[in-house]
Parts: sequence; structure tokens; C-alpha cells
Amino acid sequence: MDQRTSSSPPLYEDLAARVTALVDAGVLRPGMRAPSVRAFASQHQVSLTTAVQAYRLLEDRGVLEARPKSGFYVTQRSHRQRALPTASQPPQRARPVAVSSPVFSVLSYAGDPSYAPLGCALPSASLLAAERLDRHLARCARVHGRHYNIYADPHGDAELRGQISERALRLGHAVPPDGVLITNGCTEALNIALGVTTKPGDTVAIESPTYFGLLQVLEARGLRALELPTDPASGVDVAALDKALGTRRVAACLFASSFNNPLGTRTDDARKAAIIRVLTRHGVPLIEDDIYGDISFGDDRPRPFAAIGPNADIILCSSFSKTIAPGYRIGWLAANRRHDEILAAKFALSLSGAALPQKAMADFLKSGGYDAHLRRIRKAFADNVDRMRRVVDRSFPTDTRMTDPKGGFVLWLELPEQFNSDALYVSAIRERICFVPGGLFTATSGYRNCLRLSCSHDWDARIERSVARLGELAHELLT
Amino acid sequence: MDQRTSSSPPLYEDLAARVTALVDAGVLRPGMRAPSVRAFASQHQVSLTTAVQAYRLLEDRGVLEARPKSGFYVTQRSHRQRALPTASQPPQRARPVAVSSPVFSVLSYAGDPSYAPLGCALPSASLLAAERLDRHLARCARVHGRHYNIYADPHGDAELRGQISERALRLGHAVPPDGVLITNGCTEALNIALGVTTKPGDTVAIESPTYFGLLQVLEARGLRALELPTDPASGVDVAALDKALGTRRVAACLFASSFNNPLGTRTDDARKAAIIRVLTRHGVPLIEDDIYGDISFGDDRPRPFAAIGPNADIILCSSFSKTIAPGYRIGWLAANRRHDEILAAKFALSLSGAALPQKAMADFLKSGGYDAHLRRIRKAFADNVDRMRRVVDRSFPTDTRMTDPKGGFVLWLELPEQFNSDALYVSAIRERICFVPGGLFTATSGYRNCLRLSCSHDWDARIERSVARLGELAHELLT
Repeated sequence: MDQRTSSSPPLYEDLAARVTALVDAGVLRPGMRAPSVRAFASQHQVSLTTAVQAYRLLEDRGVLEARPKSGFYVTQRSHRQRALPTASQPPQRARPVAVSSPVFSVLSYAGDPSYAPLGCALPSASLLAAERLDRHLARCARVHGRHYNIYADPHGDAELRGQISERALRLGHAVPPDGVLITNGCTEALNIALGVTTKPGDTVAIESPTYFGLLQVLEARGLRALELPTDPASGVDVAALDKALGTRRVAACLFASSFNNPLGTRTDDARKAAIIRVLTRHGVPLIEDDIYGDISFGDDRPRPFAAIGPNADIILCSSFSKTIAPGYRIGWLAANRRHDEILAAKFALSLSGAALPQKAMADFLKSGGYDAHLRRIRKAFADNVDRMRRVVDRSFPTDTRMTDPKGGFVLWLELPEQFNSDALYVSAIRERICFVPGGLFTATSGYRNCLRLSCSHDWDARIERSVARLGELAHELLT
Repeated sequence: MDQRTSSSPPLYEDLAARVTALVDAGVLRPGMRAPSVRAFASQHQVSLTTAVQAYRLLEDRGVLEARPKSGFYVTQRSHRQRALPTASQPPQRARPVAVSSPVFSVLSYAGDPSYAPLGCALPSASLLAAERLDRHLARCARVHGRHYNIYADPHGDAELRGQISERALRLGHAVPPDGVLITNGCTEALNIALGVTTKPGDTVAIESPTYFGLLQVLEARGLRALELPTDPASGVDVAALDKALGTRRVAACLFASSFNNPLGTRTDDARKAAIIRVLTRHGVPLIEDDIYGDISFGDDRPRPFAAIGPNADIILCSSFSKTIAPGYRIGWLAANRRHDEILAAKFALSLSGAALPQKAMADFLKSGGYDAHLRRIRKAFADNVDRMRRVVDRSFPTDTRMTDPKGGFVLWLELPEQFNSDALYVSAIRERICFVPGGLFTATSGYRNCLRLSCSHDWDARIERSVARLGELAHELLT
């Protein structure tokens, strides 16, 4: 837990973290009785109130459970022992993509608040608490409205590009403001990046499983997907990538930088460097999607590919949608070549972006509020993921595998081969619980035994109950 | 002028309009001496002040000219006698499009305030005076920020779609709110419409000349352009259209609804109906771009194709960018079929639109401010066009032809065959005057003797001087 204790957390959190560490290390074993609150307080020389708070937190997180008239016990099974999902082995054949229809069925439920929100990977507005940004927008509209009521520079607001350039530099990614182009969210950035590197009918190599929205972009652009073997812990298989690029023409690779959706993988710098070397050798450009990079649970926010291979042919795409402002639709791309084609592609897609929201975002970044905001939401998402993993752990069948992401806010579950997550989906929707079945994360027929749970909403009893209920339904479907 | 006198203009404007009508009708001939101000006042039974104001306006508009110590005279040549540009006869062969590079060179000057703004067809912010809309945005950001900080429904804000649906109904275009999709400006709407009707390599039939931004969209999507013979006064040649569709596969037609850029054509309802019949017979969908429709100089705002052929296969694209909010980037499309494909295309391009600007626009429309706003800007643009036509008339070579648009804010000039507007452009840029040479409005090699002047900025002495100077330069180039 130590990665979440920056900016000095309250004492009871520190105590709870220590107890959790003992459980995770197996020192405190499932089923063991915990000391009484009074004993715990005296043992750690803290007040009774602090001890009660620590125990309450441990109970909330599913580390301890209270048994009536008996005290607190370590919960039966610790999720730390859960195996990670197996590394994927998709068929090595590029194929056209057709995922849009099932995706829209899922999205119609994912956006409906009467369904438990395990479907949509969208941070809840209350968790983001973006009021300071909104105040900047209100001020901009009052003060700058007339000045900004023009078609903005198609590159986007110059101040905002400067801020993005500065933040990139902190990660060792040197991109001048002129190399940054503001887009309508990361999705438009990906469209532009694909537009300047591919033609319809071309093959794009991607991780497997991958975000269904990405598959929809490939589908709309008439591109073929080549899914690569991907390990949940370490990322794309470098040898398989090398082989794939050697045996067919691949127009571009499109990988997440960090904490990819749905696996939450953190690929280390050495492997990123190896991937870049392979791409450079084959002359294939990399489009990287860094949308989750800022939601690193640790203090060491991972570096994007573009920072590791500054001279390689890389187009970085990202946005503020996952961290502060899904409603503002401000994304960007940063490239070290093809600037003219990129500008022409932006112009042809949507001319330019809305001016005032960009100015508001620039003001917000300049005010320095974004880093404090990131610290807060990183902790919130880390807590959510932790809580959900514990509930999955105690509710789902024993042989359920589960990711252990170090960033982002989604969990990926792999059940035994014969499990059918589409069937689980039908039952779950009947009970007003939404999640995304695994089959949507591929253009192949794989992952029917997998599912994605979103941990992006404020944790509450309904979410906890819904995850537990999914586990029961999974048990039923397997027997 | 009577079409611009709604909402009771001041008396002097009325008087000026009557004098202009007499000039245009040839009752007052060029060079004739006008009555003295005093005589005019007594003749019309108005105060001397009102008579002075009327004469000043007539002088501003180039109808009268003052000669020192001699009084007022009707200016030498009335532009009403200028011939319209000839109907276009582009080669009837579909061709790939490659206009992006020259366009960007022009746009770099068009956006630079140190150049006289005859280039960019962008209303100036001061002329639009969109402060009321901005106040709605400020309020929305303060009040609704948290509520709207989500990925909006990909269809866009429901209230805004309702408002757009209501306004369409006033024109006899019945489209339910569910048939409306909000986009990032009209450009994204056109991309979506083309995305659901064409594949790369397909041919799209368009007017000729046509807006270069449209050509860039075709270029980016790998589409071929088939340019149709087009008359500046009446629009696309129906017989030529019929023949074109009968001799090759055309995936879609893409026409402006009214006041197309650059010709400003107002196609009448009968011809629109005939065009729809031809398209229906050949089974070709129509994408119509109605972005200038609301800027009709008359009270009878023309009906879009979709209102005239309610059951035909038509996708209407439009936006608020020319009438109130270029900086907000809010466009829309309205269709009576293909709703699922349209939604999927929007999702794949940019997921959804920014939420708060849409809400602000909905509030502004509901407040009823838009119609008063339209009345004001219609008059402003009509005045600008009128003024510019008069300056062109007295400055450009005698055999210059010029459009007489009844809406929008651009003028199209046709000079003798041997004239080269690219050469004029080079000279003009040297003198800090920007306009768009004719060659950018086609995928063919045509229109090198044409040019487009934008009348979208507040009229001032620099603009007047710049147009006059362009005329002088044109004279020099022709001799």
C-alpha cells in the first residue's frame, strides 16, 4: 500500500495499510481472529477512536470481517493469491473488425443509472470533482467569450499546447508546443494518427484483448486488426511482435502506453525499448494511447513509449477524459514528424476544436491544480480497485483469475474455459447489473470466458452487492 | 432592399433604400446629380438631420458620391449591371482530390489579423456579438458542471436536439429529436454522412466550384470528386446530373442547401424537387450542407432539400458556426434512415461532444434570442455584401463578372479567361491583403481566373481600401 500513502494520510489509514500488508504477506492468515479494538489501540499506542477507524476501513476493504458477538476475523480468502489471467494467444491472422452492434447494446445499459455501473469505464463526476475547472470555464466564457468566438487555430489553444508540452517534458518526453495538436478527445486523436499512417484495408497490430472503442475505430476506418499475444503483467510479446512484422505488411502498431484497457498492464521501460527497436527495424510507426498513464497508483508515473524512444516514429495520443473532464472532450496528439499531414487530417475531420473549454483547461493547468487533483483521484481509484478485487476474491469461483492493475480503473477476470460471460451478462442485466463481457475486447472469437469490471464509480453498497451477486451468478452458471 | 427592413429600421435607412431602388431600377442614372440635402428633406418631409443620415449611408454604400463644392451624384457605374459569372462546365470525369497543401498556405494568411480579412469565410466575433450565448455557458459551467462532466450521450444533448428539431419543423422539415445527432461542427457531420454512404475510392458528385474544406474532406477520405455544371443563379444543372448518375456509379451527392460557398446560389424549390427526383430514380443518397441557410437576406429563409423531399434519402448537415458560435464547434446532422450506422460513425470518430457548450446552446435557443440575433446578422451581412459589390464594381476591370448572392457572406468574381488569380494572390499577400484564389474551389484545373472575397467582417476603411486595391492590381495584371 505504500505507494498510496504520499501526502501523509491519516494515522488510521497507515495502521490499516500495515494490517493489510501482514494479511497479504500471509502473516495474518484467513480466518484468524484479529486483536480486539481495545487491544489493537493499546498495541499501537493510538486512541480507541483511531483504532475503530482503522478497523472500519479494514472491514470496508474486505480485509477483516466482523462476526456478531465474536469480534473481527481475517476474511477467508486473500485475493493476493489469485492467479493473473493467462497470457493471450490470439490466432495470428489479420481480420476485419465488426464489433459495433454488440458494443452499442452494452453501452445503452452502461449509461443507464438504474443499472449498477460496472460497465462503463467512465469516472463518475462526483469522484472527479472538477468544480475548479468548471469555474475556469465560467470565467473564460464571461471574460473571453468574444475574443474566442472564432475558429480556433486547428492546432488548438497555444497556451494549452504549451502546458501539455511542459507536462510531457517532466516525463522526459521532449515535444515542443508546435508538435502538439488538440483533438476532440483521444478518439479523434487516434483517428488522426491512423489517418496519417494507414489506408483502408491495411493491417494494424494491437494488444489482445483490447478496448472495444479502439476496435470500433478500426472498423469504421476499414482497417484489419492483427491481435498480438499479450501478457497481463508485462504486455505485448516482443518475439511474437517481431515475427508478426516480419511475415506480413503491418501499417502501424497501436498500443496503450500504460494500464491498458482491459488488462491494466504496466509494461516496463526495458520492454518498451525492445518494442521500439523491433518497430524501428521493421519501419512500422507506433501509435500509443496514454489515456490511463496519469492514473498510476504509485508515485512513479510510467513513461510513455515516446519518452523512451524520442527519435522513433511514434504518435502519442491522450486526453483529459479519464482524469478530470470527460465532458470537455479535450484530447491531444504529439508527434515528431508528419506535422502537415496531421494538420490536414484534423482540418478534414472537424476543422478545429471548441475554443473556450481549451482556454479553461489551459488556465486550470497553469493554476497548478491538476497535480493535487491527480494525487486525489489516484488514491480514489486505487482504493476502488482494491475493494473490488476483495469482493471478487470472496464471491467468484475459486479458479477465477484476475488482474492486479497498478493503475487505471478496470479489472479483467478470466473464468474457466467453459464459462460464458454472454450468459452471465444476460442474467446480470435482468438484475440491473451492467458489466462488459469479454467477447467485446477482440475481433476474434476469444475471451468468451472473460469479463471486465469497471471500478470508476464512488464505491458504495450497491456496487459491492452487485459484484458479489455477479460472483454468485458465475457459480450458478458453472454448475 | 425591402427584404432587410423587417423589425422597423430607422427612417433614414428606409429613405436610403428607396433611393437605392431607384438607382438599381435605372430611374436615377449613373452620373446624375442628386437633389441637395435640403431639397431631399423637404421633398420627403423629413428633418434635415434625417436627410443627412440618409445621404451619408448612401455615400457609405457607394450609391452616391460627393463632389467637392458641387453636391451629390449617382456613382458612375451601378454594379447591378454586372453580369453573373458563367455557369461552370467542369470536365465530366471523377478525379482524386489534392487541394490540402495550397489551402493551408492560404489559411495561414487568412487567420493573421495583419492581413486584410477577405480570405476566411468566418464571421468576425464583434459582428456576431454572442455575449448572451457566452453568459449561458458561464452559467452552465457554474451550475451544471458536475452534472455534465460525463461522456454525453453520443447523440448529443437531448434539449439541444429538441430545439433543432423544432426549428427544422418551422421550415417544414419534420425530423424528430432522435433523428438529430450533434457533431463537432458541420465538418464532422459531413464526415459522418460520407462515412455511412461511401467507401474510399467511391465517387461523390458535387457542385463546381465548391468549398475547399469540402474537397479536403473528400481528399482525407480517399473519395473521388465528380464536379457538376453549376449555374451561379440557379444551381446544379439537373440534366447534367441525370446524365452523370446514369453513366457511372456515384455513391452520394453532396450539395449545399442554399447560398453555397463560393457561389451564393439560391436554388428554387422546383429545381430542388427535380434534383431529388433524379437522385431517387438513381438510388443515390443526398448529403446537403445547410450551413448558410439561416443567413438569408430575405425574410423567406429557403427550405432545405430535406423539407422538400421528406421521404427521400437525405442527410442534412449544418452548424451554428456561421451564424453565432464558430468557437463552440456545434454542428448537427439530421437523417431519416441509417440511424445505427450514424451513431457508430460518431462514436468511432469522437465518442461524443463536449457537454456544457451544447447545454448552453440549448438554453440560448430556448430563451428565444436566436431569431432576433439572426435578424441582426442577416442585415449586417447583407450590408457588407452590398458594400463590397459596390467597391468591386467601381474598382475591378469592366468585364469582371460577379455573383449577386441573396444570402451568406461571400462574393465570387470571374475575370477574363487569361487572368491568373494566383498571380493576383502573390501581389495581394505582399500588400497584406488576403483572399482565396479560385483554383482552390475545384479538384480540376479550372477557376484560375476567379476569386472569392469574404464579406464576413465588420466593414471598415481598410476593407474598402483593400478591395479597391485588388481591383487596381487586377487591372495591372490584365494589361
